[in-house]
Amino acid sequence: MQKLKVGIIGAGRIGRVHAKSITYHIPQAEIVAVSDLYEDGAKKLAEELGIKNYYKDYHKILENPEIQAVLICSSTDTHADIACEAAAAGKHIFCEKPVDLTVAKIKKVIDAVNKAGVKLQIGFNRRYDHNFAQIKKLAEEGKIGNLQTIKITSRDPEPPAIAYVKVSGGIFLDMTVHDFDMARFIGGEVEEVYANATVMVDPEIGNAGDVDTALVALKFKSGAIGVIDNCRRAAYGYDQRLEVFGSNGQASAANDTPTNVSFINAEGNTSDKPLYFFLERYMQSFTDEMTQFIDCVLNDKPTKTTVYDGLEALRLGLAAKKSVQEHRPVKLSEIEG
Amino acid sequence: MQKLKVGIIGAGRIGRVHAKSITYHIPQAEIVAVSDLYEDGAKKLAEELGIKNYYKDYHKILENPEIQAVLICSSTDTHADIACEAAAAGKHIFCEKPVDLTVAKIKKVIDAVNKAGVKLQIGFNRRYDHNFAQIKKLAEEGKIGNLQTIKITSRDPEPPAIAYVKVSGGIFLDMTVHDFDMARFIGGEVEEVYANATVMVDPEIGNAGDVDTALVALKFKSGAIGVIDNCRRAAYGYDQRLEVFGSNGQASAANDTPTNVSFINAEGNTSDKPLYFFLERYMQSFTDEMTQFIDCVLNDKPTKTTVYDGLEALRLGLAAKKSVQEHRPVKLSEIEG
Amino acid sequence: MQKLKVGIIGAGRIGRVHAKSITYHIPQAEIVAVSDLYEDGAKKLAEELGIKNYYKDYHKILENPEIQAVLICSSTDTHADIACEAAAAGKHIFCEKPVDLTVAKIKKVIDAVNKAGVKLQIGFNRRYDHNFAQIKKLAEEGKIGNLQTIKITSRDPEPPAIAYVKVSGGIFLDMTVHDFDMARFIGGEVEEVYANATVMVDPEIGNAGDVDTALVALKFKSGAIGVIDNCRRAAYGYDQRLEVFGSNGQASAANDTPTNVSFINAEGNTSDKPLYFFLERYMQSFTDEMTQFIDCVLNDKPTKTTVYDGLEALRLGLAAKKSVQEHRPVKLSEIEG
Amino acid sequence: MQKLKVGIIGAGRIGRVHAKSITYHIPQAEIVAVSDLYEDGAKKLAEELGIKNYYKDYHKILENPEIQAVLICSSTDTHADIACEAAAAGKHIFCEKPVDLTVAKIKKVIDAVNKAGVKLQIGFNRRYDHNFAQIKKLAEEGKIGNLQTIKITSRDPEPPAIAYVKVSGGIFLDMTVHDFDMARFIGGEVEEVYANATVMVDPEIGNAGDVDTALVALKFKSGAIGVIDNCRRAAYGYDQRLEVFGSNGQASAANDTPTNVSFINAEGNTSDKPLYFFLERYMQSFTDEMTQFIDCVLNDKPTKTTVYDGLEALRLGLAAKKSVQEHRPVKLSEIEG
Repeated sequence: MQKLKVGIIGAGRIGRVHAKSITYHIPQAEIVAVSDLYEDGAKKLAEELGIKNYYKDYHKILENPEIQAVLICSSTDTHADIACEAAAAGKHIFCEKPVDLTVAKIKKVIDAVNKAGVKLQIGFNRRYDHNFAQIKKLAEEGKIGNLQTIKITSRDPEPPAIAYVKVSGGIFLDMTVHDFDMARFIGGEVEEVYANATVMVDPEIGNAGDVDTALVALKFKSGAIGVIDNCRRAAYGYDQRLEVFGSNGQASAANDTPTNVSFINAEGNTSDKPLYFFLERYMQSFTDEMTQFIDCVLNDKPTKTTVYDGLEALRLGLAAKKSVQEHRPVKLSEIEG
Repeated sequence: MQKLKVGIIGAGRIGRVHAKSITYHIPQAEIVAVSDLYEDGAKKLAEELGIKNYYKDYHKILENPEIQAVLICSSTDTHADIACEAAAAGKHIFCEKPVDLTVAKIKKVIDAVNKAGVKLQIGFNRRYDHNFAQIKKLAEEGKIGNLQTIKITSRDPEPPAIAYVKVSGGIFLDMTVHDFDMARFIGGEVEEVYANATVMVDPEIGNAGDVDTALVALKFKSGAIGVIDNCRRAAYGYDQRLEVFGSNGQASAANDTPTNVSFINAEGNTSDKPLYFFLERYMQSFTDEMTQFIDCVLNDKPTKTTVYDGLEALRLGLAAKKSVQEHRPVKLSEIEG
Repeated sequence: MQKLKVGIIGAGRIGRVHAKSITYHIPQAEIVAVSDLYEDGAKKLAEELGIKNYYKDYHKILENPEIQAVLICSSTDTHADIACEAAAAGKHIFCEKPVDLTVAKIKKVIDAVNKAGVKLQIGFNRRYDHNFAQIKKLAEEGKIGNLQTIKITSRDPEPPAIAYVKVSGGIFLDMTVHDFDMARFIGGEVEEVYANATVMVDPEIGNAGDVDTALVALKFKSGAIGVIDNCRRAAYGYDQRLEVFGSNGQASAANDTPTNVSFINAEGNTSDKPLYFFLERYMQSFTDEMTQFIDCVLNDKPTKTTVYDGLEALRLGLAAKKSVQEHRPVKLSEIEG
Repeated sequence: MQKLKVGIIGAGRIGRVHAKSITYHIPQAEIVAVSDLYEDGAKKLAEELGIKNYYKDYHKILENPEIQAVLICSSTDTHADIACEAAAAGKHIFCEKPVDLTVAKIKKVIDAVNKAGVKLQIGFNRRYDHNFAQIKKLAEEGKIGNLQTIKITSRDPEPPAIAYVKVSGGIFLDMTVHDFDMARFIGGEVEEVYANATVMVDPEIGNAGDVDTALVALKFKSGAIGVIDNCRRAAYGYDQRLEVFGSNGQASAANDTPTNVSFINAEGNTSDKPLYFFLERYMQSFTDEMTQFIDCVLNDKPTKTTVYDGLEALRLGLAAKKSVQEHRPVKLSEIEG
């Protein structure tokens, strides 16, 4: 078997996740090198997984002719530039989301990728989640019928640090962006958004110019309607649900839990809270998206989550932001695309 | 519409239940009279529901030519004698369970009923419960396939008073008798039982010569196997479940609960305990069994739960008792029938 | 016991429901008379339940000095006028929703009731539903914490006849009005609504000037946000759910089902659809709201669902209508009140 | 970090599972060698996971002084002899279940292990399952109170090949043995068993001298009672449940499923069947038991599942066999131990 030779740029949390997925679960690929500005992190990961090379400078990865594909797992502000360079170097690209917080830079990536003729898959891992993928399957099989109402709930166990909030682009670009992608995954293109947003979790988030609780009403091009509700903090942990209602029925995904145990006593019937930590909740999806990427490159298939999906999710986030600022429904066509 | 004229013998808890079912939900019948040794109880019920006559002596009911059917809701030790008299008086009979704690007396009732050509329905209400009836339906439709394993769980919220325990005939005749009937309802005739029994709830129950926790293994004539587990006290209330496994699948009935609300917080996901009180849990079944009885009499159909069912459930209880005493499996054929 | 003497105006579906609740479950009240324009309907109900008097003309009820309270169960367009007359006649009033489709008429009722010093309870029965009342209780006990997001799903099994659609006032006044009341019941006063609406069930509904699928985003005065999603037809029946998210946790109400049976075979694990028919789904709430009304009158307590609640729910419906027409968020203060 | 040096004897299905657990999830251990009678299997596994040595003859592993612990994953009939040799060679031992189908040979292993002072952990992986371990935790914390009734359901998706049935020792030694261990894990020592058994899945299993459907009633030394029900085939897949009832409440473990998606349409509400394949269902437990073993050896802790547990589970299986043959309850003390 000819293994795909991969380089990983960024040995932080998500870089390590992908590195382990490939090492442990994807025999079709081999990690040739890993780089990180913090070189010790790259070294540690290389040793742990038996990766031959580690670098401080990601250019060494781009210059390595043996490497066919790169995973861009560095900080968000570097994604677009590295992606352009990688494309120019002829590497296929798996890029973590968001590609960038501006439309302009994402369009540069689109141009670079098109010009180089390389594949790019963006890390919208939730599309590969067992629950959400099953609902997509039911929709594609026609079981749900014509889709009418799509409802997405996404709540985090804890808000991020205020320092991060300030550079995050705000809740719509940082958190809801996943839900916008899920909305498009299930319901197709969105035409218009209307957003309500407020600060109910922590006034410091408001002071930092952001909101922590939001609700976005969606109109899809198909005529379907939808809603996303977000909160930066749920007392019971990580809440990730989806409900899709159509002419033939309704599919819904409940949360995953650590066990399937119920305990019933004089106080009531108690079962588990949802899985708390996103890496645990979505581990299966991270492995499956990487398996998919490797397969697309090796077998020359189009990737399923492209940089265009990244662009559209960003534009929906920008539209939601504008909706809150101008207190009115905003058409996606009002956002530069 | 010609209404069936009914007399109720016994105005205690279960007599009141049936009286209300008929008054409120069964327009095909009319209660003409009610009797109770405690005459004030009969009077109170008559006034409450607008019943024309009330008596201390049930013979007045049997002598009333207008009355076509009687409900025997008096104390257990009087059931058989009243049933024989009622049959002789040409009344159709609904008789609360158990008919009697001896085989001999039940056989007298069978003879009396056969001789008089009247109908008798025994109050095995659980057969009419929405959950258990649904499982029976799945079985009859062949959805479950050949039945292989039948599992019944039945636990009470609190043990009865010790005084009652002493005259109850013991757990197998008093409590398990319902489960034996359920076993026969679903699985057909039983060939053999083996019972384990112990005292874990209250030593006073042991001192009274009974047990409070039991498990009965069943062999059905069909070849299927089964198990009943009982306890006189469950900390969480009234536990009434059934699971039927066959060659094509498995049907199971969970408990009914007061609401369908879940509350999830940092401690976990909490929902309701089962309905606590048997009258609340089984109210629908009481109404449905009475509707069925009235229909059988009015339209000359055979009743679905006959005195023979009462006899067989008693014999299974006696077999279970013998199994504990002799510490061995006991064939039903060893019990007088 | 001094029983409350009640007259029922309107012997149609909901009038019959209340008549049976009182007769069978509320010994504190007695129905003295029933009226219906279709006199045979009144007669039939009177005979069935043993009601002494029946009339074609409801004025006979208002003129009967024995009658202390009336239930207005006639057609919607007559509610307000009858309520004003009943108040003038000194009768306490239970009035079915909606009181009227105009603000002006409801205000006349408020004036009449205030002037006469009689009680009026409006028939927002869902507040008395076991599931929703349990969530309200959790909220009041502080279990949920500060309420942040309130989500209501309400879908009917089948759309009404097109003839009815034309006079119904539209989905927001006819169907969502219940959900607006539920939103206020749980979250308090609403400040602003934004509605998306579309025709996806039946184009005839659109031709009749109405929509059949809608989503309403809410801002509460408390700062909380909310969403209602409606559809005139769900393939699986009657879908009535509520989810309340707050700083301490989340409460949610699932649908009620006919049984608690699961059947699992090679195809999957199947359980019941929701109860299909609203009278079955909400029967307990109809009885409980009537018990509450009788109690308020007999013991001189304020009613819990007043004509003011009817007014506010109507105004929210009008605001939602205006939001769709003008394609913008509409403050409740823009609607005459 | 000093890694534990491990050798794996047997590169079949379960050997591969343990090899991957160690390679991917247990950095505290390192596999130094693997052996298999089918040398190509050992070679393939070694190459796949980067294991330095592979052999046909397991003695090479026992002779390797670098190796501190061995995993015995060969065929059942070789377990006991290899375990004795491994103990004599001073290796700590992880041995797959069953150790042997005879008491005598297991006792030899106990002697050998005691004499050599090495640790032995037996592969009763289900004790490490997330669901069952959670119930054990609830029991140990006293949440359940005094244990009264323990119910275990274990059904396979498909029966084994008839050729295997013939050498398996029968259902009680081959399949129920896991459930006997679970019963002891939760309820402590068992005093007596009574078994019903029948052939309902495939007459060929009966012709091979075995049964395919069984129910075992248990009496624990504590006074608690229990029941195990088994079937060699469930139409819906792999059914693995546990219910523990005590004086304070009841804990129950439902099956694990591939997704948490529900789909509801006009036919009903459908969700997933249980995970079908035991390696998928129990993968987490395989990793966790191996982590535990490595930790016990490295940190000189007693293993939690010892060869004594293997012996007692076997004796319970032999007692159940005897119970069926002699059609009576059998005390464990009747079985050589």
